[in-house]
Amino acid sequence: MEEKLYIPIILGTAREGRFSELVASFVYQEVSKFDNIETEIIDVRDFRIKATDDTGTLPKAKKWKKIAKRADGFLIVSPEYNHSFPGELKMMLDLAYPEYARKPAAICGVSSGGFGGVRMVEQLRLVFITLKLLPIRATVYFSNVKTLFTKGGKIQDEGYAPQVKAMMSDLIWHANALRAARKNS
Amino acid sequence: MEEKLYIPIILGTAREGRFSELVASFVYQEVSKFDNIETEIIDVRDFRIKATDDTGTLPKAKKWKKIAKRADGFLIVSPEYNHSFPGELKMMLDLAYPEYARKPAAICGVSSGGFGGVRMVEQLRLVFITLKLLPIRATVYFSNVKTLFTKGGKIQDEGYAPQVKAMMSDLIWHANALRAARKNS
Amino acid sequence: MEEKLYIPIILGTAREGRFSELVASFVYQEVSKFDNIETEIIDVRDFRIKATDDTGTLPKAKKWKKIAKRADGFLIVSPEYNHSFPGELKMMLDLAYPEYARKPAAICGVSSGGFGGVRMVEQLRLVFITLKLLPIRATVYFSNVKTLFTKGGKIQDEGYAPQVKAMMSDLIWHANALRAARKNS
Amino acid sequence: MEEKLYIPIILGTAREGRFSELVASFVYQEVSKFDNIETEIIDVRDFRIKATDDTGTLPKAKKWKKIAKRADGFLIVSPEYNHSFPGELKMMLDLAYPEYARKPAAICGVSSGGFGGVRMVEQLRLVFITLKLLPIRATVYFSNVKTLFTKGGKIQDEGYAPQVKAMMSDLIWHANALRAARKNS
Repeated sequence: MEEKLYIPIILGTAREGRFSELVASFVYQEVSKFDNIETEIIDVRDFRIKATDDTGTLPKAKKWKKIAKRADGFLIVSPEYNHSFPGELKMMLDLAYPEYARKPAAICGVSSGGFGGVRMVEQLRLVFITLKLLPIRATVYFSNVKTLFTKGGKIQDEGYAPQVKAMMSDLIWHANALRAARKNS
Repeated sequence: MEEKLYIPIILGTAREGRFSELVASFVYQEVSKFDNIETEIIDVRDFRIKATDDTGTLPKAKKWKKIAKRADGFLIVSPEYNHSFPGELKMMLDLAYPEYARKPAAICGVSSGGFGGVRMVEQLRLVFITLKLLPIRATVYFSNVKTLFTKGGKIQDEGYAPQVKAMMSDLIWHANALRAARKNS
Repeated sequence: MEEKLYIPIILGTAREGRFSELVASFVYQEVSKFDNIETEIIDVRDFRIKATDDTGTLPKAKKWKKIAKRADGFLIVSPEYNHSFPGELKMMLDLAYPEYARKPAAICGVSSGGFGGVRMVEQLRLVFITLKLLPIRATVYFSNVKTLFTKGGKIQDEGYAPQVKAMMSDLIWHANALRAARKNS
Repeated sequence: MEEKLYIPIILGTAREGRFSELVASFVYQEVSKFDNIETEIIDVRDFRIKATDDTGTLPKAKKWKKIAKRADGFLIVSPEYNHSFPGELKMMLDLAYPEYARKPAAICGVSSGGFGGVRMVEQLRLVFITLKLLPIRATVYFSNVKTLFTKGGKIQDEGYAPQVKAMMSDLIWHANALRAARKNS
């Protein structure tokens, strides 16, 4: 039997009142429907540091490296702040390096505007490449996030679930392809 | 016996007096040293069109689509003009679409300055992702190209050959991983 | 009396059946409402060349340089093709260089999708900076362009006219600021 | 007599052992040679926050907004980490917004590699535009920073001083142009 793929969902903002948390919860539910995936939400709040650092000896760095090493792929849920990513997400990603190599990564963009964080996605993809992560095309753009969910946290647009499903299918395809090749090399 | 990988080298500028042609020739020689690769230089001059078009019925489009469909990976050799790619390269890439999916792509940047076309590389990588090409990190940056070659076309910096070799090793790894998975799906 | 600002509108695609032509016509009408501006549509179709070239001796290059030199600012109307600009637009912009310096530039993005060409805008802005053009924030994103206009070419969304007006106000502010300073230096 | 321009130098990394501090000190000395400029080094270490936040009520946000409001232009000295900017710099820039409008900004890139942080520069420029800052082309790229300075902190490459001078001349030109226009509007 095929070993499950471990694909953590990274919640990329630590901001007070973050709407991306609702998106991450929704995405988590959808990802959990895939039998062959193990997932969990990794909250950037648990990996906040005071300065970019590469010592790798910090407990938080060690913890993130361990998660990243085990991962077969990554799914980032992140808002766009001023057309780029939150600083805290960048600092967290900068904590590891060899752990990312040759694994695929997808993004769910979040925005209170109408473009779903698409500019953040573009900048983050370039950071991925540097980290030897392989950015896939499939992306879900969550727009108008302030009114997207009910007070109970239920998403009000039925179009997103199939989008997440399609993105995951593509991410899984790449995760399997690359895991198989990593095992053989 | 494993089928050879077909990885064409795309020469991305049609400019008169292009130095990138010398780079493409050098890269071609180095790539040819790999036994398991079939390669050739594809010259953007042969794919020049008067306007971006998606009809797909043009003979040039058909020819490029056929090459792209057969390819297991792509290696672009392109100069940087005003911090981005040549327009003719973009027009050529825009001629195909499904033919690119789930294949890796690498870039050799070329510049008369000291930064080897690194900004063109960043912009081109984002176009790759849209085309469902997977941009790999390994890249070779050819700087100061106007004085890099002898009049006879011989490269004068011995550091580039091992860089091309390392890049190709990584491109081959990804090409094999993705070809195997494409065959299984 | 203040001399009028000359701000040409560049139609950035030569593609057959281009919807951006409708956008450019609409934008032209709106820009023409400003008394202190002289404008005209400059069509990239009239500046198509076979290869990127910097000779500057071509009649088309001369013609574009003359327009660019006279301009106090630029307004680009361009579609997004595969998340970047049309190749023919890049080739046209590459025809000039000193003519652009210290002048502001704005963009109207055009897309058949929902994001109004926003990724093209980001890539084009970086090219602007290289050319010493100053990209301003104000931008109008024309989404879903295939259904935006009536068969008679009339825009069906009343929200765009005020957006173009606001963008132009900002472009004019910057054009005046920079023209005054260029005259003094 | 013309009022002096206030152009703070932002040191963009809080990392332990940061080499960018040496660059900032060198740049500060060079900028101080201009009679018509008032400058100081603003250290991102003094503006570290635990999460991106837009409340604007935090003492650190207030302090930065005050500086930003007073500034006639900005000079960022920042390293490139994984081809983008330090997270702490992004978080600091996100603390203000209207204070930046219609002011020019330049960047000194810093890298331990050979490309002087050029990819960080490209990403940061796009953030600038969002903030209504005007990114100018003039940029200084500090490469190989780990060996660029003596133990005493003296720069060992005489080529950088004239580069900083030229960049400042351009930044000053734009700062004066835009300040004059802001006063008139």
